[in-house]
Amino acid sequence: MDSTQSGSRLLPDIHARSVPEALIGALRSRFDRQFSTALVVREQHGRDESAFSVPPPDAVVFAQSTQDVADAVKLAAQFLVPVIPFGVGTSLEGHLLAVQGGISLDVSRMNLVLAIHAEDLTVTVQPGVTRKQLNEAVKSTGLFFPIDPGADATIGGMSATRASGTNAVRYGTMRENVLALEVVTAAGEIIRTGTRAKKSAAGYDLTRLLVGSEGTLGVITEVTVKLYPLPEAVLAATCCFGSLAEAVNSTIGIIQMGIPIARCELLDANTIRMVNRHAHLTLTESAMLLMEFHGSPAGVQEQVEAVQAIASEHGGQAFEWAKTPEERTRLWAARHNAYFAGVQSRPGCKAITTDTCVPISRLADALLDSVTEAQASGLSYFLVGHVGDGNFHMGYLIDPNDPVERAQAEQLNTQLVQRALRLGGTCTGEHGVGLHKMDFLLEETGAGAVAMMRAIKQALDPDNILNPGKIFSL
Amino acid sequence: MDSTQSGSRLLPDIHARSVPEALIGALRSRFDRQFSTALVVREQHGRDESAFSVPPPDAVVFAQSTQDVADAVKLAAQFLVPVIPFGVGTSLEGHLLAVQGGISLDVSRMNLVLAIHAEDLTVTVQPGVTRKQLNEAVKSTGLFFPIDPGADATIGGMSATRASGTNAVRYGTMRENVLALEVVTAAGEIIRTGTRAKKSAAGYDLTRLLVGSEGTLGVITEVTVKLYPLPEAVLAATCCFGSLAEAVNSTIGIIQMGIPIARCELLDANTIRMVNRHAHLTLTESAMLLMEFHGSPAGVQEQVEAVQAIASEHGGQAFEWAKTPEERTRLWAARHNAYFAGVQSRPGCKAITTDTCVPISRLADALLDSVTEAQASGLSYFLVGHVGDGNFHMGYLIDPNDPVERAQAEQLNTQLVQRALRLGGTCTGEHGVGLHKMDFLLEETGAGAVAMMRAIKQALDPDNILNPGKIFSL
Repeated sequence: MDSTQSGSRLLPDIHARSVPEALIGALRSRFDRQFSTALVVREQHGRDESAFSVPPPDAVVFAQSTQDVADAVKLAAQFLVPVIPFGVGTSLEGHLLAVQGGISLDVSRMNLVLAIHAEDLTVTVQPGVTRKQLNEAVKSTGLFFPIDPGADATIGGMSATRASGTNAVRYGTMRENVLALEVVTAAGEIIRTGTRAKKSAAGYDLTRLLVGSEGTLGVITEVTVKLYPLPEAVLAATCCFGSLAEAVNSTIGIIQMGIPIARCELLDANTIRMVNRHAHLTLTESAMLLMEFHGSPAGVQEQVEAVQAIASEHGGQAFEWAKTPEERTRLWAARHNAYFAGVQSRPGCKAITTDTCVPISRLADALLDSVTEAQASGLSYFLVGHVGDGNFHMGYLIDPNDPVERAQAEQLNTQLVQRALRLGGTCTGEHGVGLHKMDFLLEETGAGAVAMMRAIKQALDPDNILNPGKIFSL
Repeated sequence: MDSTQSGSRLLPDIHARSVPEALIGALRSRFDRQFSTALVVREQHGRDESAFSVPPPDAVVFAQSTQDVADAVKLAAQFLVPVIPFGVGTSLEGHLLAVQGGISLDVSRMNLVLAIHAEDLTVTVQPGVTRKQLNEAVKSTGLFFPIDPGADATIGGMSATRASGTNAVRYGTMRENVLALEVVTAAGEIIRTGTRAKKSAAGYDLTRLLVGSEGTLGVITEVTVKLYPLPEAVLAATCCFGSLAEAVNSTIGIIQMGIPIARCELLDANTIRMVNRHAHLTLTESAMLLMEFHGSPAGVQEQVEAVQAIASEHGGQAFEWAKTPEERTRLWAARHNAYFAGVQSRPGCKAITTDTCVPISRLADALLDSVTEAQASGLSYFLVGHVGDGNFHMGYLIDPNDPVERAQAEQLNTQLVQRALRLGGTCTGEHGVGLHKMDFLLEETGAGAVAMMRAIKQALDPDNILNPGKIFSL
């Protein structure tokens, strides 16, 4: 396929629908001080971490209950006006941009932890609860929630985008960890999917259909997720390599051996330099794996020995340990902030991020050529990866006002994605499709599967009011 | 809700559609010797392991390729005639019964293992490959496929019903283990969902929508599943208890501790008696946990010690070991054949099986009262359970021609399911809804969620030709 025709979108199509004054009046009357049309509020709800810039939504509703969400959706439906769910705005793919205008439905005030069932290893929260807030709330139970995208995203947003993060290699993604949902449909009806039971064969798996549907099939108003016992022993280590290839090949070996490593993250020398500057660290500026091991003390020791042996075979140096919990926290905070460290390394820039994920044996093929191409381009970039999953991110740091740089970054992105697809992978491991990967999705899964998605969307949201213009065109 | 109004169906509604001679002629002409209307063939495709008896399908197509499936569906679609996918006929819930007549589409001859990617821990198979065949095919790679419903079911059927089995407590169910599908839609189009990458956020999760859709949204023609390294050490043990309550409470303790036990199965004394007779074993006839531990030798030892300590606290006796691989195989074969041991304990009987799954802390509440009720009824029954998942099965052994026994069993089933729902559980952990649990599904998830399922079905199969009459009424 010609990469100039396909590939990710340089700029989104904008077709704002008109928002009648009658709707504005009805929302103001229903929501009073939970409603705003102030430009500053709208603008805050009209941008995310993507490199896109579009006009803000027409108004913002601050929902405080499921009934608020249902009422807002019902009013919007009556006037055929788009509704865009909003958590804390950390999307990287333009998910929350009002490309067809409409109402931003902010659920960040729905931030109650509703029920901790420590005895069942489950917790039920409102969608505005963030992952850090959740972990704080369950800390005293000896349990934790492992899914950790870089930002302190909301559980609702993480569900909607099928997020994962550094622990997914061992604990899975939101796909594996959401047990049940409460959702407001496009008609403003409140439905429930799933139960707190660990498994179920009860009809269509609506829970997993809604997880990752990016707000296009329903507005998530309650989420039940799995929790895990805090491991008895936790060890974090870094390991330096002479080349990226050695680090990647070590990762492949670790996964193929079935070692239950909890985190296995890659940074290149260039990115470590950015991280050191941003977080005032002194990590060795070489290709590096950041790892964490969870288990019993003896089990962790076994894992460490097996991984060190594999790394040594590939030229890895001795592990350096994050010995105290504080050191460990600092190391992972630095990793989680790599995106921001990258963006701040070039004032005024925006990052165009990639998110391919490939079968583990193809990781070196997918990653190394993409790095070579980025280096050859002369564009500034960062490279981080949940490499244990076969998933890595490049962030091309562009001047958003320079169309040449933007086109160059998108060209690199297109080459990288098409390579991953050829290797049996996906265009997005965890960030979602949003505005940016609609063409890639079509290339990845084919017109037949996208037609099936579209049929489902049309059946569940016939007026196309729920976050329209995302994932696929209608 | 009044249990006389709701509850599972005593007998299915039958509304056979007419199958025009023109379709029979077209199928015969296209499929020749892969097509049959012989009564014996139709009858063989018209019964499963459920207690229902309905007229057989009108004809059977033996597909040998995806194109065969597509052509058969297209012809059936042209005449608005039902198509019912058929693997090896081990459904327990009437999934393959032709309640609206039509064509049985037998995919058992599509039994090629298409691609073993040991280096990625994945394998791609045709839908007629059985789980035992799959494990035989990958044996030399040092990998295995853990999902093991009792019967030697096909991977296609296991995908369609979201099956699990004894290893699910550690390795998950088909929900967690299917990565990608090829599917023929109701229009006879061939689509692909998912990739071989471990995770993805690329649009709607069609893979998981189709897994568990019981043949009502598409005919599965190819399945890619995860494989796992054979554990370095495997130990199997039995542990006897003075009461069911002690065995159940031990299980709850094991799971709450987060011990990564690979199998944790319960049988009651009554069922052990049936198993001993059927498999010529001499297991102690008491409440018993059958367990298996996977890991490194040291890791397995740690698990065993932790579990033995918990069991002892609850009055469990010392473990008895299945020391050799042969002993282990014999033990698990006996467990897998418990269903058949139960059915054979009463000549001519049929089993009405239950399949609830509850949050682990509610397992004792769910199970013990149900056993008391079964005992009080005087009906013969067996009890087995994937109790590590909170999932257990009772099989009420009825004379299928005795309406009183049938009604009595269904009444027990209804009480058992309604109890599980009150405890936050599901009516089916792994067998699916089929014909038998349609009313329970409604009770479990509510009219709103079932309406969403129905809307999806109508969007993807507007003429209702794919396995009609299952999961919900239209």
